[in-house]
Amino acid sequence: MSRLTLALDVMGGDFGPRITIPASILALEQDPTLEFLLFGDSQQITPLLQNIPTSIQQRLRICHCSREINNQQGLSYALRHSKGTSMRLAIEAVQQGDAKACVSAGNTAALMGLAKVLLPCLPGIDRPALLSLIPTVNKGCSVMLDLGANIECRAENLYQFALMGSIFAENTLNILYPRVALLNIGIEEIKGYKSIREATHLIEQNANLQYIGFIEGNLLLNGVADVIVSDGFNGNIALKTLEGAMMNLMSLLKERTLLSYPPLNKMVAWLAKRLFNRSYQQLAHFNPEQYNGASLVGLNAVVVKAHGSSTVNSFAYAIKDAALQARQAIPNKILMGLERN
Amino acid sequence: MSRLTLALDVMGGDFGPRITIPASILALEQDPTLEFLLFGDSQQITPLLQNIPTSIQQRLRICHCSREINNQQGLSYALRHSKGTSMRLAIEAVQQGDAKACVSAGNTAALMGLAKVLLPCLPGIDRPALLSLIPTVNKGCSVMLDLGANIECRAENLYQFALMGSIFAENTLNILYPRVALLNIGIEEIKGYKSIREATHLIEQNANLQYIGFIEGNLLLNGVADVIVSDGFNGNIALKTLEGAMMNLMSLLKERTLLSYPPLNKMVAWLAKRLFNRSYQQLAHFNPEQYNGASLVGLNAVVVKAHGSSTVNSFAYAIKDAALQARQAIPNKILMGLERN
Repeated sequence: MSRLTLALDVMGGDFGPRITIPASILALEQDPTLEFLLFGDSQQITPLLQNIPTSIQQRLRICHCSREINNQQGLSYALRHSKGTSMRLAIEAVQQGDAKACVSAGNTAALMGLAKVLLPCLPGIDRPALLSLIPTVNKGCSVMLDLGANIECRAENLYQFALMGSIFAENTLNILYPRVALLNIGIEEIKGYKSIREATHLIEQNANLQYIGFIEGNLLLNGVADVIVSDGFNGNIALKTLEGAMMNLMSLLKERTLLSYPPLNKMVAWLAKRLFNRSYQQLAHFNPEQYNGASLVGLNAVVVKAHGSSTVNSFAYAIKDAALQARQAIPNKILMGLERN
Repeated sequence: MSRLTLALDVMGGDFGPRITIPASILALEQDPTLEFLLFGDSQQITPLLQNIPTSIQQRLRICHCSREINNQQGLSYALRHSKGTSMRLAIEAVQQGDAKACVSAGNTAALMGLAKVLLPCLPGIDRPALLSLIPTVNKGCSVMLDLGANIECRAENLYQFALMGSIFAENTLNILYPRVALLNIGIEEIKGYKSIREATHLIEQNANLQYIGFIEGNLLLNGVADVIVSDGFNGNIALKTLEGAMMNLMSLLKERTLLSYPPLNKMVAWLAKRLFNRSYQQLAHFNPEQYNGASLVGLNAVVVKAHGSSTVNSFAYAIKDAALQARQAIPNKILMGLERN
């Protein structure tokens, strides 16, 4: 497989290079076909690259910049003062064809704003959307969008999200005819906002979409729909609520893990672990670290937003996700899908 | 303690009397000061009351009616044809002072619609809201509203919800100066809808409210706020998402419970259970059955909506919740709280 170059904003996220650089090394170890352009402060980056094998070293290039966008900056300030920042340079690398995709754990609004300014929207898409995979209890995943790019949406926007989500699910989850649902507060036709009810009609009229109706929050994890469409406000509320619930319940369980038991109990603990192992394995499928990348879809290139609180593992997942989308040429497939409609 | 009479719509919910009657008996067993008016079809109710002790029998009165509102009926149809239905009669019993509170697991929209028509709003409240308790990881609870009574809200509505939620938390959770937060998709001032940002100012200006800012979905279970305020659409999405996540994760764990292990493993299973017991106890705090009752606050009487899919236990919880609110005269306390502002 030929080499794939990604542009990484290594200054983004709560911990900057201390997380993003070890994550980059991990991602390069896991995938020998990747290479990275690392945008950020070389003084902070270089010490973190000591003692790594030459085979990894050779696939990294530091693109020094002293400026960065931080999380406290409002959108308009961030955009006005974005020149020469690690985030903007990473997106520009994609714009100029030096990289196939860009990953950042930085300021979400700024990343979306800059990406929309620098990378053209696909024809037929009025507004890009943030998309993510969510795990389901039947060990699969659903695609969910919009997760915060658009606070309020018209029916046409929701319809376009349904189209993009369906094409994304088809190509990344290998689902032939993905089931599309609209997030709502009931399943009866009369429920919810006017925009949602109107979107129903638009989606139903498109024979390429398998519309299955409204979905409520309690079924998000149940794999009843492959694509879950909502406006950015509701999608964000739902996704963060899911993440919070999973993190909290899992950490309640972990609090009492085997590690915390005195040595006398070790043998029982070992046996218990074997007994409970399948529960834990099933829970592991819900580990939010694995669903870290939210993609900005609807642009002509791959832009992945990692969590601000990314860990090394989860930032590496986001990189992997961006690489997969770039390899599968998802923006191009969305474009072809839109043209088919 | 003097007797407390509640009006129960026993026809509501997915299973009608088969759930609501055993739940009523359970609630009467647990609380010897309660008595119920049971509104519904006596032909369905009577057989379910066989063989119960006289002490329970004496505290039940069947108020026969042959009509009921079902879940498929749209709001306007349900309201127009509500005369003589079990739900309407139960609310009318409260209106006429025959009962102190009403509980139904029936059609939510119809229950809210009828309650708003039959029971006066408290002065100073433009729109009642659906309120519920949600469990928190620190073994407490937060109050959350609105959960679906009002799809779209102005800043003034959100402000009134904050007031009612704060008074509710003060009185039912015994919190002196409850921390109030607005549900939003970020914590920065500029985030979210205009109505949310404007509500901030209204809430901040009231010295009786302890406003702590915006809260995101991922912290709903963390006990960082005592009162979480949102419009009915987002509140409903968040609550149902929470419920779904909890139910799913708990059933994943239960799938592999001790019951499913062959006899040879029983001893180890017993030991394992002891080891894992605290995890399970902590999870039990999140059992959605315990948080079944959503209360319609802002009216001059107690109206509790139980889940359509209520079990015997959870419908009994909803009854208990209604009794508690009636005993504490929550509507009156909200009224006094509003007058203080």
